[in-house]
Amino acid sequence: MAAKIIPDIVIGRLPIYLRALTRMHQKGRQVTSSQELGERLGISAAQIRKDLSQFGEFGKQGTGYNIEFLTQKIQEILKVNRIWDVAVIGAGDIGRAVANYAGFHHRGFRITKIFDNDPDKIGSTYNGIKVQDIATMDKEVEKAGIKVAMLAVPAEEAQQVADKLVESGVRAILNYAPVSLNVPKGVRVQHIDPAVHLQNMTYYLD
Amino acid sequence: MAAKIIPDIVIGRLPIYLRALTRMHQKGRQVTSSQELGERLGISAAQIRKDLSQFGEFGKQGTGYNIEFLTQKIQEILKVNRIWDVAVIGAGDIGRAVANYAGFHHRGFRITKIFDNDPDKIGSTYNGIKVQDIATMDKEVEKAGIKVAMLAVPAEEAQQVADKLVESGVRAILNYAPVSLNVPKGVRVQHIDPAVHLQNMTYYLD
Repeated sequence: MAAKIIPDIVIGRLPIYLRALTRMHQKGRQVTSSQELGERLGISAAQIRKDLSQFGEFGKQGTGYNIEFLTQKIQEILKVNRIWDVAVIGAGDIGRAVANYAGFHHRGFRITKIFDNDPDKIGSTYNGIKVQDIATMDKEVEKAGIKVAMLAVPAEEAQQVADKLVESGVRAILNYAPVSLNVPKGVRVQHIDPAVHLQNMTYYLD
Repeated sequence: MAAKIIPDIVIGRLPIYLRALTRMHQKGRQVTSSQELGERLGISAAQIRKDLSQFGEFGKQGTGYNIEFLTQKIQEILKVNRIWDVAVIGAGDIGRAVANYAGFHHRGFRITKIFDNDPDKIGSTYNGIKVQDIATMDKEVEKAGIKVAMLAVPAEEAQQVADKLVESGVRAILNYAPVSLNVPKGVRVQHIDPAVHLQNMTYYLD
């Protein structure tokens, strides 16, 4: 698989497929089809078949996909058949919401560290994790070998904190600050910006 | 413009362009190019030119784009050259974070209502907005003519609340619950699911 370059947009759809498959599995379902997945997700069945075919043969014409098998395969492809430790930077509203978020469960991630620069927050506990002084972030992240971070600091601090995270070995940053980040090659950044999603939808409103 | 069908994926990139342009404008910049935008956003210059050309001629070969003009045009296309009232359902950690989020400012949205079913939360105030009883949601949303909502309720309640919102006239739902929603045609749904973003990035990690 490593030799073949898969378009980012295909990779971007795999977690969506995985979420739908996991939900079906939780409901006791065993088999699905590209048609059913497509209807659920608003993606064409042909697109789903094409996306999955990039990684091998996961289903048979006429019999559909085995949900458990396909789930495991996608987890392997996305490397979430393991648990990634995650550092959260910023213990404000978003940081706290993220720390308490139930949606990471069984999806490959575990928040293990939270950092902030506010003396009032340092030492308090969110979901069992003690908020640590951001001054110790570099050392702590490096020592723990953390590769994944969620950035929930004010926009004007985001780039500086991102730089430090990258220096400390972080290779994937989920950025909640409404600002683009410059990172070196080999580091991935994704944004969560609710205004972007809302603007995407208002286009279609009257 | 109404007659031409623009692919969803193109519409999805416009808010990203808008965010970058707004930031350039705030920094006093007046002109940019598809090359510069592309480098900032990790999108090819050719793609940006092609996307924008779907809506008309916004720049000239060799002179680039006027930032203020292009900003206004994209705001018009996305219908965020006005302010949309937004209802937030769920006054937990995410609801509070969203209510306090500074990133909506000047981007077309204003949160005007927050609802919850928890008696301890009803009546408290988030960012100047009083949390109202969810039992009044249908009536309040309909009366206010609200078309846009953010759904921050537990997964098992999300579909039921979404159904009520749609009945009350909501046509765009930003869903924070880690569950897919079934909505009738003509209603848009987008998801914010941090695990999906993280899974997208771990693919690229060693």
